[in-house]
Amino acid sequence: MSDAKIRRPRAETPKGFRDYFGAEVTERKAMLDKIAEVYHRYGFDPLETSAVETVESLGKFLPDVDRPNEGVFAWQEDGSDWLALRYDLTAPLARVAAQYRNDLPSPYRRYAMGPVWRNEKPGPGRFRQFYQCDADTVGAPSVAADAEICAMLADALEAAGIERGDYVVKVNNRKVLNGVMEVAGLSGDDKHAERGIVLRAIDKIDRLGAEGVRALLGEGRKDESGDFTKGAGLSDEQAEVVMGFVRAGSLADERAAEISKLVAMGDAASSADGQSNLDLARDGLTVSAQKLAAALFGANEDVKNVGSHYRNTAVISVLGQLVGNSVVGNQGVDELAEILDIVQSQGYGPDRIVIDPGVVRGLGYYTGPVYEAELTFEILDEKGRKRQFGSVAGGGRYDDLVKRFTGQAVPATGVSIGVDRLLAALHAKGRISADTTGPVIVTVMDRDRMADYMGMVGELRAAGIRAECYLGNPKNFGNQLKYADKRHSPIAIIQGGNEAESGTVILKDLILGAQIAQNATLEEWKDRPAQVEVPRADLVAAVRRMLDIR
Amino acid sequence: MSDAKIRRPRAETPKGFRDYFGAEVTERKAMLDKIAEVYHRYGFDPLETSAVETVESLGKFLPDVDRPNEGVFAWQEDGSDWLALRYDLTAPLARVAAQYRNDLPSPYRRYAMGPVWRNEKPGPGRFRQFYQCDADTVGAPSVAADAEICAMLADALEAAGIERGDYVVKVNNRKVLNGVMEVAGLSGDDKHAERGIVLRAIDKIDRLGAEGVRALLGEGRKDESGDFTKGAGLSDEQAEVVMGFVRAGSLADERAAEISKLVAMGDAASSADGQSNLDLARDGLTVSAQKLAAALFGANEDVKNVGSHYRNTAVISVLGQLVGNSVVGNQGVDELAEILDIVQSQGYGPDRIVIDPGVVRGLGYYTGPVYEAELTFEILDEKGRKRQFGSVAGGGRYDDLVKRFTGQAVPATGVSIGVDRLLAALHAKGRISADTTGPVIVTVMDRDRMADYMGMVGELRAAGIRAECYLGNPKNFGNQLKYADKRHSPIAIIQGGNEAESGTVILKDLILGAQIAQNATLEEWKDRPAQVEVPRADLVAAVRRMLDIR
Repeated sequence: MSDAKIRRPRAETPKGFRDYFGAEVTERKAMLDKIAEVYHRYGFDPLETSAVETVESLGKFLPDVDRPNEGVFAWQEDGSDWLALRYDLTAPLARVAAQYRNDLPSPYRRYAMGPVWRNEKPGPGRFRQFYQCDADTVGAPSVAADAEICAMLADALEAAGIERGDYVVKVNNRKVLNGVMEVAGLSGDDKHAERGIVLRAIDKIDRLGAEGVRALLGEGRKDESGDFTKGAGLSDEQAEVVMGFVRAGSLADERAAEISKLVAMGDAASSADGQSNLDLARDGLTVSAQKLAAALFGANEDVKNVGSHYRNTAVISVLGQLVGNSVVGNQGVDELAEILDIVQSQGYGPDRIVIDPGVVRGLGYYTGPVYEAELTFEILDEKGRKRQFGSVAGGGRYDDLVKRFTGQAVPATGVSIGVDRLLAALHAKGRISADTTGPVIVTVMDRDRMADYMGMVGELRAAGIRAECYLGNPKNFGNQLKYADKRHSPIAIIQGGNEAESGTVILKDLILGAQIAQNATLEEWKDRPAQVEVPRADLVAAVRRMLDIR
Repeated sequence: MSDAKIRRPRAETPKGFRDYFGAEVTERKAMLDKIAEVYHRYGFDPLETSAVETVESLGKFLPDVDRPNEGVFAWQEDGSDWLALRYDLTAPLARVAAQYRNDLPSPYRRYAMGPVWRNEKPGPGRFRQFYQCDADTVGAPSVAADAEICAMLADALEAAGIERGDYVVKVNNRKVLNGVMEVAGLSGDDKHAERGIVLRAIDKIDRLGAEGVRALLGEGRKDESGDFTKGAGLSDEQAEVVMGFVRAGSLADERAAEISKLVAMGDAASSADGQSNLDLARDGLTVSAQKLAAALFGANEDVKNVGSHYRNTAVISVLGQLVGNSVVGNQGVDELAEILDIVQSQGYGPDRIVIDPGVVRGLGYYTGPVYEAELTFEILDEKGRKRQFGSVAGGGRYDDLVKRFTGQAVPATGVSIGVDRLLAALHAKGRISADTTGPVIVTVMDRDRMADYMGMVGELRAAGIRAECYLGNPKNFGNQLKYADKRHSPIAIIQGGNEAESGTVILKDLILGAQIAQNATLEEWKDRPAQVEVPRADLVAAVRRMLDIR
């Protein structure tokens, strides 16, 4: 008989999914609204693609795999196409750019905000549905498009609430790295494995330090546990070229400090020292050096900023030396110089945008400039140790995305902001200002006078005040107060028989009374000082006064 | 060999899905933002559940069906649960209300806005992903919760841009219909089939008229094509009871007109005629009659409105007579009277909320009050015929939704706004005010001065002006103007070599020039009168002036 018993369904979100309540929804929305405003000002248009795409168009899978569910949620339509939930916002953009290529403006600037789905093992804080917030420009070959996205990223972070100085947008170029590889003799097709090891080693600089990276470029590295990682097997000469790249940032720091000192010592604008050091900047710089110099030492330049401005120029100078005669390498350095030129012309100094050779992200995917926004303040990790907050956004140029649909290469560049990470950062800095105040609660003392209580609520709402009547069972007044407490209600309105007779209402300040609210009876409650009795006709004005005081 | 050729993927949305571009996204967002503001003021909190639920929790399917994909998009996790995309926002709410029942405030007022998915045959204008916008109160047994949602629905429609007089919220009660069935002798378990036919017949009143409905209550009805629909086989007496319900609205109209006339003839406030007609209103009214009368004939009542106010009271009076001694029927009438009482106390007259026995929606699902928002203006259909716009929102009380999870009945009531239909209505009435103006376009005359152009764009953006630099190939100036045209750009900024030398920029008013923009060369363009040349330093001020003039 027990088999016949109706089994109740479990009330559970699927594994790896979650729900968002109240402020969790409004805080994210407020943040995305502010970012959308910046994107809009930059001329980007919203695009909302469907959550469902054909697996064919998402294009992550081999046609001979029976069930293409690795990494995505996919299912087969009855005897027809395989469909899947989008795993990012870039793949749908590629499909749209191809599908509507004759109708869309070119270049096409679009932003997209919405959930994406990953069929991956969920972990702590890692969910299988999460938000992305992307902006991309399709069809713009000029690196001005990359410069624009870097500037927009800086503006978007500030609009969201990250103060200037708390973030930096770092820019690098995949082509520079290719140039360095070429100089190091690692550009051939037969050097694929070595290049992979070198790239992964560079990417680990923050964790392993220069020494660890150097070991991985050579024979290999033994970690603390004794495990051995095989290296790229480069000669000392080859390894030195790569290490030059790894050290480019600190080398530039030194040069910048040096010239900064010299400039500060001598006459600001055009001392001989300044001039001679400018020559340093020109080393390896194939274009734009003069423009950069003019920008650096122009009459309007604040002497104090020359050093830090020079840092960006110095990095470009160092990179220029590193790529030697490599055509692609020099192209990459020129592109960086042009990006720098543009963002400087828009007033974005090195406090906001810096050239940083250390940015090595998704290099298999990107084909030119890459960029990353890093938050520079410290937070405490789960073990109470201070650590830098780190990256909250990244992107770059990917010129081949549309090609798989149309056969035609279409240049594209874009950025994706990590919505949850940025929200976490705003929380960590106390910059979330979502209004979590609950509604004013009109309590029910006499259920036959429901229309009177609802009339009060109606007046408050008509005056723009968030308000509710208690709609549970009104018998136990304590439950009404518990409810008001749970709702973070600022004020409770009470009108019993006496008040109704004398044409008054009582206003209770609940924020003052929150501590005793849990178990208060009506009598205790009425004795608290934070309450006023006002004529019924003054209800709205009195509520407004009590809300304003706070 | 042709087999080895790489087949390019089709760049297509899956069948029945679509993309939303630019204004399509922002218009919907603006409308939902305004509605959310109203919901917030009413004390409702946002809830965003995951798009994916377990099929078990969605609960639309039999456990022995191999593949539960009827109506939903579903797939099986590797050797584990069946998952599915939510098909509405109510099923996830039921799951949430059960899952978090110990943590949520009770009553729990929540709103939800987002896409839902239906695995149905797509048709013209019918998509397999679309938006819903719901508000529900869980855990409030009082019909004050239903009254609140009706008032909120009226406010939400007005906030979205539907003017008062262009919509009406209609309220009915499932229990009244049950009472009428009881009086007609159709309440037994053995009368299930007859009840079904009767309900479907009532629902067709708009299409078939009273005569058609009457035929379906008896032997049956032959339509114009000659097809015969079998009727419920009611006796004349039974049919008359049901027809009384069908005619309740027009009967109430007659009574309302009558009393309106009498009241207008005599002394306004308390003439003997008014009093004697008030007795009419009391017929069949089991509660609230006195309160209603007071509301109707109170000293502050505008005489002109008595008639239309009386219409609601008259409907209740007529329904009260129809349900006779049926307990559930009288309960239903009392509930309607209480709802009316509450919304009137909040100032919602019959111009916004009416009792309408004709509302027969989803009766298998709802257990008490049901409501529907109808737009009362006419639009032209696809054949150019005038027709009423019709329903844009509906809902009601459904008390058993959470029970399947917990075994405990939890009262709930809520409304769902048809997002696409409401948007279409706003379009039809010309009440969509989304800003479709494109960005100011800075054209590129000399690609070596990209930084200068980007500097202009930076200044405009910093001043809050939507602006872009043309980032395609600048060689063909005509393409730049075509681009500006496609972007609905209001102004193009031009700075060629001459202007650069003399330190000026040219501003072109593109809205004036739109007609010739398609094929204009730079020369034609420059000769148009709607252009000004201003000093470079005045760029922002001059753009602002040109934008303001328009």
